[in-house]
Amino acid sequence: MSDLVLSSLDEGVLTLTFNRPDRLNAWTDAMGRRYFDLLEQAERDPGVRVVVVTGAGKGFCAGADFQTLAAVQDGSYDVEPDKRPTTHPTTIRKPVIAAVNGACAGLGMVHALVCDLVFTAAEAKWTTAFARRGLIAEYGLAWILPRLIGQPRAMDLLLSGRTFTGAEAGDLGLANRVVPGERLLEETLAYARELAAHSSPASMAVIKRQVWGDWGRSLAESESEAVRLMLESFTRPDFAEGVASFLERRTPAFPPLGG
Amino acid sequence: MSDLVLSSLDEGVLTLTFNRPDRLNAWTDAMGRRYFDLLEQAERDPGVRVVVVTGAGKGFCAGADFQTLAAVQDGSYDVEPDKRPTTHPTTIRKPVIAAVNGACAGLGMVHALVCDLVFTAAEAKWTTAFARRGLIAEYGLAWILPRLIGQPRAMDLLLSGRTFTGAEAGDLGLANRVVPGERLLEETLAYARELAAHSSPASMAVIKRQVWGDWGRSLAESESEAVRLMLESFTRPDFAEGVASFLERRTPAFPPLGG
Amino acid sequence: MSDLVLSSLDEGVLTLTFNRPDRLNAWTDAMGRRYFDLLEQAERDPGVRVVVVTGAGKGFCAGADFQTLAAVQDGSYDVEPDKRPTTHPTTIRKPVIAAVNGACAGLGMVHALVCDLVFTAAEAKWTTAFARRGLIAEYGLAWILPRLIGQPRAMDLLLSGRTFTGAEAGDLGLANRVVPGERLLEETLAYARELAAHSSPASMAVIKRQVWGDWGRSLAESESEAVRLMLESFTRPDFAEGVASFLERRTPAFPPLGG
Repeated sequence: MSDLVLSSLDEGVLTLTFNRPDRLNAWTDAMGRRYFDLLEQAERDPGVRVVVVTGAGKGFCAGADFQTLAAVQDGSYDVEPDKRPTTHPTTIRKPVIAAVNGACAGLGMVHALVCDLVFTAAEAKWTTAFARRGLIAEYGLAWILPRLIGQPRAMDLLLSGRTFTGAEAGDLGLANRVVPGERLLEETLAYARELAAHSSPASMAVIKRQVWGDWGRSLAESESEAVRLMLESFTRPDFAEGVASFLERRTPAFPPLGG
Repeated sequence: MSDLVLSSLDEGVLTLTFNRPDRLNAWTDAMGRRYFDLLEQAERDPGVRVVVVTGAGKGFCAGADFQTLAAVQDGSYDVEPDKRPTTHPTTIRKPVIAAVNGACAGLGMVHALVCDLVFTAAEAKWTTAFARRGLIAEYGLAWILPRLIGQPRAMDLLLSGRTFTGAEAGDLGLANRVVPGERLLEETLAYARELAAHSSPASMAVIKRQVWGDWGRSLAESESEAVRLMLESFTRPDFAEGVASFLERRTPAFPPLGG
Repeated sequence: MSDLVLSSLDEGVLTLTFNRPDRLNAWTDAMGRRYFDLLEQAERDPGVRVVVVTGAGKGFCAGADFQTLAAVQDGSYDVEPDKRPTTHPTTIRKPVIAAVNGACAGLGMVHALVCDLVFTAAEAKWTTAFARRGLIAEYGLAWILPRLIGQPRAMDLLLSGRTFTGAEAGDLGLANRVVPGERLLEETLAYARELAAHSSPASMAVIKRQVWGDWGRSLAESESEAVRLMLESFTRPDFAEGVASFLERRTPAFPPLGG
């Protein structure tokens, strides 16, 4: 079971790798359970500061596995009870960065975009695909995509289901960075290590929650909440260390994320 | 009356053309009624899968007709009872694509931007104009524009009322595609025909409603709603046909949009 | 006290200049009080139509003053009673334009981004900085930033606290215009004078309130509100003058903003 998602930790960065390369890492419920279990372990592990998610082989994730779709069609598919929602990574208290190494389609695209940042190979093939399969904008993508790239571009990608490259994903604002495939993981890990070395884990946990949560607040509510969170941050050792390391022009030594 | 908006259907794409070319298609209540009537007919017509909206002659729509404005100023203007809101096209269950062939000003810009996608001639002149006429951000544009292109760019266009080209509209993210004027309609129709041929009408209807509606939902609500809509989509013939045509590497034959 | 923020009025444009150049205009409560007092005076002054905010010397605003941070850390900092929120400029009824001439960090970046438009020197250094100091996304920035530049880019800037140039701020969509430093003030003032000369003060006041407010409304609510505001605008002299000046092809002579 554990082979469905590979896991490796280096310098505070945990890399999770979808590992069904012969199927372009098409999504199965079992792979999803394993992925979310590993994310939850990462959240608790003081050695992990940032998570990078990528795919083994040529694809990132080609969408729902066709055996699952076939089971849906013949009525033999059982919905898993207490299934964690696809947006689960947005609730993990550590940054999750997608490194989209190749095919990123349908449900795979949702799994990329519920990450906090997205790096993509220039030549990766992206597509929402749903409209071409008679499906709908799955699992919150109609909420997420317009907030990522604006509504007209979201409509284009969702209504047409057309295929576009990682390079265009960058132009559209979907990906934070576009990198030639052979350097993708290296550049994503370098960025992740910067976060792990220079950004306070407590700060990142709070900021991530603020950004996802403030879509549901007014500006006035956001500001009040930020003042409350700022006063809280003053009491954490991270603040003292952040200021001291800045004044002493050295790399900060922030404590791991607390419980 | 029917000449105020021309209508022609080809390969599932209905082209509606504002037809007051001597006035750069300036908006009148009569033209608006005709336009919305045709949109509603298009929604019911099984032969129509996508709607393209453009203007006859040199303009797309130069804004409110000055005779209407004059009537407003001298108090002789009667507000039409039960007038459908300017945002009416957002509720039509088929994609509506604006092909902005020329002058697109004030109310004309609102009519372009309540379409789901926007293609524009590179040399078309765009302007919100309102602030330069002592008016306000009309008919929801203060809601739409920041969601299309981000708030700072929306503020620039709304506060200044400055004129900008279709090429800049593309750079700002306002238009999905910028095309030399002489090829605009051809490229817009090619895109629309792609939607008509490859995207499920039922999928497009649901996705359009999701995208416009999810601005008012939380991510969690959007995801639950998407799961409900996905289960519904599993029961439609579009899903079976979408999967079958993909596996058989052929163009899908989706049924027209149901009632 | 008044020297903390310089003030000068020319052709309807009030320029406010943060004036602690030896500290890169680092923020103090006293400077904040003076700035907000001047904004409120500007709102009431019929001679002011647009406000430009910039910094003296090499910086725009380098963030919270370290003496303030030190006072926070040793517990000697007193929160000012009835302090106006950092987002106060969003409630001022005249456009406020930031001209970011140099270092724009942390709290300084918040003060730039609660302005309605942002012009920046290409070589200015920007950073959110918070995560590197053990702090959080302060004063509504987690609300504002994703609405300005989309969520993935906001996450990058907030989680990493990395430094980026004004040129990148333009590419990200954060700044409306990027200008070589030596021409920044000149170009910002030229844009501001255009607003002062051609845009109705009443229109700008309403439009500014609509844009900030419509994030909390549905599209339908926004449209109804816009219709109400449009009917109101028909009764103002600005509308008559806006139409007359357009037809007569002359610069409008709009009255100053009323009470």
